[in-house]
Amino acid sequence: MIHPQLATMLVYLFTDVMVTPPELKQCLWAVCDETFNCISVDGDTSTNDTVLLMASGQSKIRLGAVKNKFQAALRQVCGSLAEQIVSDGEGVRHVIRLSVEQTRSREEALHIARSIARSLLVKTAWAGADPNWGRILAAIGASGVRIDPKEVTIFIGRQVVCRRGVACAFDEAAAHRDLAQPACDVRITLQRGRASAAFLTTDLTAEYVRINADYST
Amino acid sequence: MIHPQLATMLVYLFTDVMVTPPELKQCLWAVCDETFNCISVDGDTSTNDTVLLMASGQSKIRLGAVKNKFQAALRQVCGSLAEQIVSDGEGVRHVIRLSVEQTRSREEALHIARSIARSLLVKTAWAGADPNWGRILAAIGASGVRIDPKEVTIFIGRQVVCRRGVACAFDEAAAHRDLAQPACDVRITLQRGRASAAFLTTDLTAEYVRINADYST
Repeated sequence: MIHPQLATMLVYLFTDVMVTPPELKQCLWAVCDETFNCISVDGDTSTNDTVLLMASGQSKIRLGAVKNKFQAALRQVCGSLAEQIVSDGEGVRHVIRLSVEQTRSREEALHIARSIARSLLVKTAWAGADPNWGRILAAIGASGVRIDPKEVTIFIGRQVVCRRGVACAFDEAAAHRDLAQPACDVRITLQRGRASAAFLTTDLTAEYVRINADYST
Repeated sequence: MIHPQLATMLVYLFTDVMVTPPELKQCLWAVCDETFNCISVDGDTSTNDTVLLMASGQSKIRLGAVKNKFQAALRQVCGSLAEQIVSDGEGVRHVIRLSVEQTRSREEALHIARSIARSLLVKTAWAGADPNWGRILAAIGASGVRIDPKEVTIFIGRQVVCRRGVACAFDEAAAHRDLAQPACDVRITLQRGRASAAFLTTDLTAEYVRINADYST
C-alpha cells in the first residue's frame, strides 16, 4: 500500500528465496539507500514509513546462488515503487530525475541533491516548466558545500543550459517542452571527483498547497 | 528598498553618531543575528542581500556615551524592517512569530525554528489557519536534534495545544481565529535548558506558487 497523501509509505515485499535475516537486511538496506531514501516530494519526513522484506524460503534456492540477480530484481522493484510514490505525490505534475555527478563523495552529491529538491524557488519553476537554471545554481550554492560556480554544468532534458557556471545559448522552447513532460532529467556535473547520486523529486504546485491547507488532521 | 519579490533585500541604515567602523560593525552584526538572520519566507537564500549601516559622526556624540540606547534603537529599526520583509513576502497571508524556548543553546533553538519554518506541511496548515500541532511536532522531530516528545509543549495564539507531547483539550475555533489574524504567536518550550530564539516566518499559499511558477527569470 502506498498512499503518500497520508504522508505514509508502507512497503511490503515478499520473496521465496532461502536467506538468513541478517543477509536479507543487508540486501534491503543497500537497495533502500538508493531508492526510498533518494526521493522527496515536499522535504517533509513521515513519522511512520515502513519497508518490510519477508522471505519464505519455499523455493529452496539459497541467496548465495542467485545473489546478483536477487539484488538487481530487488533494486528494480524498489526503484519502480519509489518512482510511483513520487509521481503520485500531492499535486505533482512533473517528476524530476535529478543526477548530481562528479562529486567528492556520494554523501556530498546527496547533500546537494536534497538542497535542490527542497528549494521552493526551484520546485515552483519546475511547476511552470521554466528552464530556470539560476535557481538551481543558487540552491547548489545554498547547500553549504563550498563549490566554485566555474565547476558547475547543468543539463535540463537533452540540453546543456549552463556550462562551467556560465549561461549557454540553448533552445528555450525545447527545454520548456522537456520540463512539461510527466518526467524530465536534470543533470548537474561538478568537476570535483568521481562520486554521484540519483535522486527523484517533483515540482511544487498550487494544488499541493490546496490539498494540505484545506484539511485538518 | 525592500523588495522580497525579487528575493533581494537591500537595507541602508544611517546614523549621525560618532563611531569607528569596527565598533559600528560589531553593533550591526549583533542586531542582524537577531533580526534579518531570523526570518524565513520560503527557506531560499538570496544571492545578493545587503545590510549597510553608515555613520556620519555629525552629532559629535560618541557611541560610548549612548551605546545601550543606540543598540536598542538599531534593534527596533531592524526588527521592524525584518517583520515588514516577512509580511510583504510572496503570497503571504499570515506572519508567524515563532518562539523556541528552554533549549540547551541558542543555536539549537534556531535549528529547530528553521526546521519548523521550512516544513511545507506546517506552512500549508498555517495557510489554512489550521491549529495542527502534530505537523509542528513532526518538524521538531525531523530537525535532527534528539528530543524526547515528552519535553515538548506547544502554544498556538493564547492556548496550550500540546502539553509535554500529549494532546490538550483546547478551543479549536479560537485557535483557528488566532491563526487567521495577519500575525500569530507560536511558542514551543522544550525543558532542555535556558536558551531561546525568536524567529519570524510565514504561511505558504497557492498564491506563492503562482507568483513563482508563472514567470521566467
